[in-house]
Amino acid sequence: MTHSDRPRPGAGLEAFFAARGIAVVGASEDYTKIGGRPVHLLRKYGYAGAIYPINPKGGEIQGLPAYASVRDTPQAPDMAVVAVPARAAVEAVRDCAARGVRAVVMLSAGFAEAGPEGAEMQAEMVDIAREAGMRLLGPNCLGTVSVAEAAIGSFSVVLEEYMPSAGDVGIVSQSGNVGSFAMQNIVQRGLGVSRFIATGNEADVDVADGLAALVDDPATRVILCVMETCRDAGRLIEALELARTRGKPVIVLKIGSTEQGQAAAASHTGALAGSDAVIDAVFRRHGALRVHSIEALLDVAHAASQLMPHRLPKGNRVALVAASGGFGIMMADAMANAGMRMPALADATRERIRAALPGAGTNNPVDASAQVSSRPEILLSVLSALMDDPGSDATLLFLSLSLYNSRLRGVYMQALAQVREAHPEKLLMVISRGPADAVAEINALGIPVFPTIDAAAQGLAGLVRLGGLATQPAPLGCRGAAAPLPAEVFRNEYHAKKILAAAGVPVLDEAIATTADDAARHAARMGWPVVLKIVSEDIAHKTEVGGVELNLASEDAVRAAYARILARVAERAPGARVEGVLVAPMARGGTELIMGVSRDPVFGPVVMVGMGGIYAEVLKDVAVQVAPVSEDEALAMIRGLKLFALLDGARGQARADVQAAARTVARLSEFACRHAADVAEIDMNPVLVKPEGEGVVVLDALMIPPREPQSVH
Amino acid sequence: MTHSDRPRPGAGLEAFFAARGIAVVGASEDYTKIGGRPVHLLRKYGYAGAIYPINPKGGEIQGLPAYASVRDTPQAPDMAVVAVPARAAVEAVRDCAARGVRAVVMLSAGFAEAGPEGAEMQAEMVDIAREAGMRLLGPNCLGTVSVAEAAIGSFSVVLEEYMPSAGDVGIVSQSGNVGSFAMQNIVQRGLGVSRFIATGNEADVDVADGLAALVDDPATRVILCVMETCRDAGRLIEALELARTRGKPVIVLKIGSTEQGQAAAASHTGALAGSDAVIDAVFRRHGALRVHSIEALLDVAHAASQLMPHRLPKGNRVALVAASGGFGIMMADAMANAGMRMPALADATRERIRAALPGAGTNNPVDASAQVSSRPEILLSVLSALMDDPGSDATLLFLSLSLYNSRLRGVYMQALAQVREAHPEKLLMVISRGPADAVAEINALGIPVFPTIDAAAQGLAGLVRLGGLATQPAPLGCRGAAAPLPAEVFRNEYHAKKILAAAGVPVLDEAIATTADDAARHAARMGWPVVLKIVSEDIAHKTEVGGVELNLASEDAVRAAYARILARVAERAPGARVEGVLVAPMARGGTELIMGVSRDPVFGPVVMVGMGGIYAEVLKDVAVQVAPVSEDEALAMIRGLKLFALLDGARGQARADVQAAARTVARLSEFACRHAADVAEIDMNPVLVKPEGEGVVVLDALMIPPREPQSVH
Repeated sequence: MTHSDRPRPGAGLEAFFAARGIAVVGASEDYTKIGGRPVHLLRKYGYAGAIYPINPKGGEIQGLPAYASVRDTPQAPDMAVVAVPARAAVEAVRDCAARGVRAVVMLSAGFAEAGPEGAEMQAEMVDIAREAGMRLLGPNCLGTVSVAEAAIGSFSVVLEEYMPSAGDVGIVSQSGNVGSFAMQNIVQRGLGVSRFIATGNEADVDVADGLAALVDDPATRVILCVMETCRDAGRLIEALELARTRGKPVIVLKIGSTEQGQAAAASHTGALAGSDAVIDAVFRRHGALRVHSIEALLDVAHAASQLMPHRLPKGNRVALVAASGGFGIMMADAMANAGMRMPALADATRERIRAALPGAGTNNPVDASAQVSSRPEILLSVLSALMDDPGSDATLLFLSLSLYNSRLRGVYMQALAQVREAHPEKLLMVISRGPADAVAEINALGIPVFPTIDAAAQGLAGLVRLGGLATQPAPLGCRGAAAPLPAEVFRNEYHAKKILAAAGVPVLDEAIATTADDAARHAARMGWPVVLKIVSEDIAHKTEVGGVELNLASEDAVRAAYARILARVAERAPGARVEGVLVAPMARGGTELIMGVSRDPVFGPVVMVGMGGIYAEVLKDVAVQVAPVSEDEALAMIRGLKLFALLDGARGQARADVQAAARTVARLSEFACRHAADVAEIDMNPVLVKPEGEGVVVLDALMIPPREPQSVH
Repeated sequence: MTHSDRPRPGAGLEAFFAARGIAVVGASEDYTKIGGRPVHLLRKYGYAGAIYPINPKGGEIQGLPAYASVRDTPQAPDMAVVAVPARAAVEAVRDCAARGVRAVVMLSAGFAEAGPEGAEMQAEMVDIAREAGMRLLGPNCLGTVSVAEAAIGSFSVVLEEYMPSAGDVGIVSQSGNVGSFAMQNIVQRGLGVSRFIATGNEADVDVADGLAALVDDPATRVILCVMETCRDAGRLIEALELARTRGKPVIVLKIGSTEQGQAAAASHTGALAGSDAVIDAVFRRHGALRVHSIEALLDVAHAASQLMPHRLPKGNRVALVAASGGFGIMMADAMANAGMRMPALADATRERIRAALPGAGTNNPVDASAQVSSRPEILLSVLSALMDDPGSDATLLFLSLSLYNSRLRGVYMQALAQVREAHPEKLLMVISRGPADAVAEINALGIPVFPTIDAAAQGLAGLVRLGGLATQPAPLGCRGAAAPLPAEVFRNEYHAKKILAAAGVPVLDEAIATTADDAARHAARMGWPVVLKIVSEDIAHKTEVGGVELNLASEDAVRAAYARILARVAERAPGARVEGVLVAPMARGGTELIMGVSRDPVFGPVVMVGMGGIYAEVLKDVAVQVAPVSEDEALAMIRGLKLFALLDGARGQARADVQAAARTVARLSEFACRHAADVAEIDMNPVLVKPEGEGVVVLDALMIPPREPQSVH
């Protein structure tokens, strides 16, 4: 199985969604068994196509004629659901291929997750499927459900109790159980589901397939994704880009964000975990909204489903209102923590509120006092004033107990319905934890309801990000592989910097001297003072062997220093091969950054930029992104550093040339991308960022080749 | 009204809780009015004492004889509830005092929150109450409810619908609405309430009173507190210490934690906000558990009510189990983020799990697979093995859909009941979001149930803190005011350091020279090299006027530097009064800290310690605590710094003498406390922390007197 064999993400998945005819291999009379359940569910929920129970015994199963093999079915089913032991399952896939089945759902376990023998059988299945142009979901998965079509290839426990109602939320999940849980929660919220896809071992169909198919699916308006691990970076990015360019929101719960969680994920999926920071950056760049809990996943998916495509907030300015000051304070805390802004209300807005409610506090949050609900017209006036406020992108109303009180509930419902009608475009949201029927009633008005203040703040911030995706520029692609690098770039800093300079990375004007006179001549040309550094691939720490002399201000000083360096190195590192002594101008002033490239096991070359120095190192104050990055992306990475203020004129210092730093990161990233095959790691440390307009300069650089000797040229 | 007039926290509040006889001033026939509601509620919920409606019209109100004034009641009521306009309310308080009422609940608004006139009336009421030995709750408050006694002095909307059941959770809240919301939530969770106290304007009774009274109250086992602002630091600390020493858990939702939230709080309460970091430190030191949402408040209060007094976790090691790997990963992420540890299970535990369930993953989190619920005895074996594991303090079970499935629900309930019975002492917790009746059933077993993974992780971390309070040492007190400081300490660093040295803060051996020879003589005594610094109260930035010379290694060098300094200062700061030139040994090596003292508007002198240098300044990497702090507390503050690794041997550096640094912070804090009246601010920057065993030394210090001239001596 090679990557190039694989169909493009999403190809052929419509055969799962709208299967004309479904065979169930391993069908059983007992519908509590995995093989019995699909037949039972297809009938129970009214699947309109033909159902073919497959069982070597033949006869009748759950009232339907059974067949000994898929090969025997009167017509070729589009989809086959397989629930027989692994060895028999491989044969079933062969039968499916022979019969012209287009999509196989492999519920059975005992494959790659069970050991090498299982992995071999899994590979065999994939070969059969690819050969036949069939898509294979699983194995070891919870399968798929298309709700409107009642096309069910799953034994999810949720379906034991009820079928979700048809709706516009599509679910793709690696974990069947987490996906099922999400589906059940969606149903409980009164939302509908379009498709459910659980990918399990991802032998063929992976999360990227599911994402891409849901982007193409007209029944799906919002995509909800649960990921444990990414097995193929290119396909994931391709699918995310498809969603981004089509404007279909993808909300991702990527679990395993901590070291402990990743350890648990590794033991569960057996897949190699990439860096969480890298995949986080990938989601951000390619337009997916990452959340960190099932609750946030559902909250945002629910609101997005209500607000798509025109009512997502256009910015992060929110007007807050509660009937009590205490709740206003909590809302302000939560919004500030979520990065939302609470601008002062316009004078006209404040006057309208005061006219309706003389006792109200008209700061933002508005303290509307209990009087606001004394009459529906007061509430209506206050909410209308806020909805008309030109300085906010959304209005958020907190309701604590009011909906539990039958008198107040009526007042609120009436006002909310009127405000919603009068302001069809602007976002109004409510925070309330119940009662459930009141929440459903508000949701039915098209007003998103969040259960808690924190959920509303985080959710609103997420919706703002989704609302801004349309204006997000398309990410860069790699311009293709460059000619292989000469081996010398891995030997010392001089050659590493030379090759980086050719790629547009600013370095000092340096030279390698092999005699003292040579050194003095180079120095005189460069201007004073200069530094000398020993050049030897055998010496990692130049200072420790006395291989560095700083601040040399004359030709004589250079000659003397040259001699001292060679003498010390000869004494302290007698076996070292010495290529010469590096002469460089002594750079001073500016702020130190570090920049670098590493190789993520999933996403390949990753560019990094961080503050220099030991403080920043202890803080891990770095930003990462998959290479290449644009200058704008690099700028955003730098601006996001915790210590960015140090570059931005903190404590009255000159502002640093951040633009030049960003340009350097971008060029480094392009270099890394074009040399992905022959460079494993690049460290540029320190990179001196000079005052605005004066640029940056890389003082030291190191390149490390990949471990496999054959890819070093 | 002065502080000394005020009764000790909690004194006299039993008159609210167990009032024999309640008068309602402003009683009305209409029970939807504020004055009508208490009479209605007292009757509806079966208050057993006498109810005296007070109304100038006399006659009958809600079937009870009404009186024109509290003075006319046949017996003196313990409590009077007042709901008449402000002016009349003051008279009512006077009547209450004359009649011998012990506790007044002032529901009326229009006092301090309404302006200066209202503030005057409020002060008048307090004077009357203090004079008569009455306690006054409010004004502008939602009053109080004692559930078992049905002693109600409140118009909370919650009581319109039902009375909470009597239980052991006491609520004290500044915000009536937030307190009511909490009460309603507690009821919905099936928990009972002992008392509800909403303090409003806090003219007399404040949160500290409420806390102390609930500590004394045998009906209350867990105290839930909502605070917007602290008006009296001493009383708050006294009440928190009472709770801590009696071992009664206090869980606090202090709102207004961000700048934006504090702005909202200031406009709502009119009270001065102290620093959030300071009050956070106060809660931590005095044993209160601070939470950051209503949901967390309720989750922890609920669990604490179930686990008090013997089942709180003894440490932060947790064993996790779920029927699916995906949920395990999420649990591991959440626990890691909450600071919990997930140690590997003992071999015996793993063997027992494998014996019961051959397919289970026996790492921690345990991946028990769906098979775990196939038979009750399997589940029981797995849970029992985890509860017996010697390496964990708690076991946490995640349930997603199982409780919604009638078949699985029975399996889980049976196993949970058996495990609980077999392990009466060890903590077992469940994560489940429903259904509500199943959650109630698990709670009834004494097993805390959290609704989400994040809530469980944060909640468990909170319970661990509550469980550790018993071993927390008592905080230090201030040893009393010291003799006033001489004015010269505010004049220059030399005198500031001298007085700090006398308090045990290590400084250099320094001297002020007034001639070049003088300087050279001092330097020779100190050893080489030395530094010279100009001493002038008119020069804030010594370096900028050329007032500093470093690294002087001989008497001649000192004499020459002395002359240069005086010449430059004469030229660049011609009007400056010069006291002399400071001679000090040149300190080198070590890591820089900053230490200081500032004055919090609420809590008084606060000691601060942080990493030195511009990086740390930009990061605001500091810890604060109200002075004085013990050496152990100071050590914990230093260890909590983000950049602590720099003191702890990061990058192969020598470990710094953190103990000496802590000792210095403790001494500085004691000094600040004893000089609270005459020092507003102290800055020690930098403080050089040398390698372990070599101590610290303060290189520069500055003291600033309070603004009021009379308190400077």
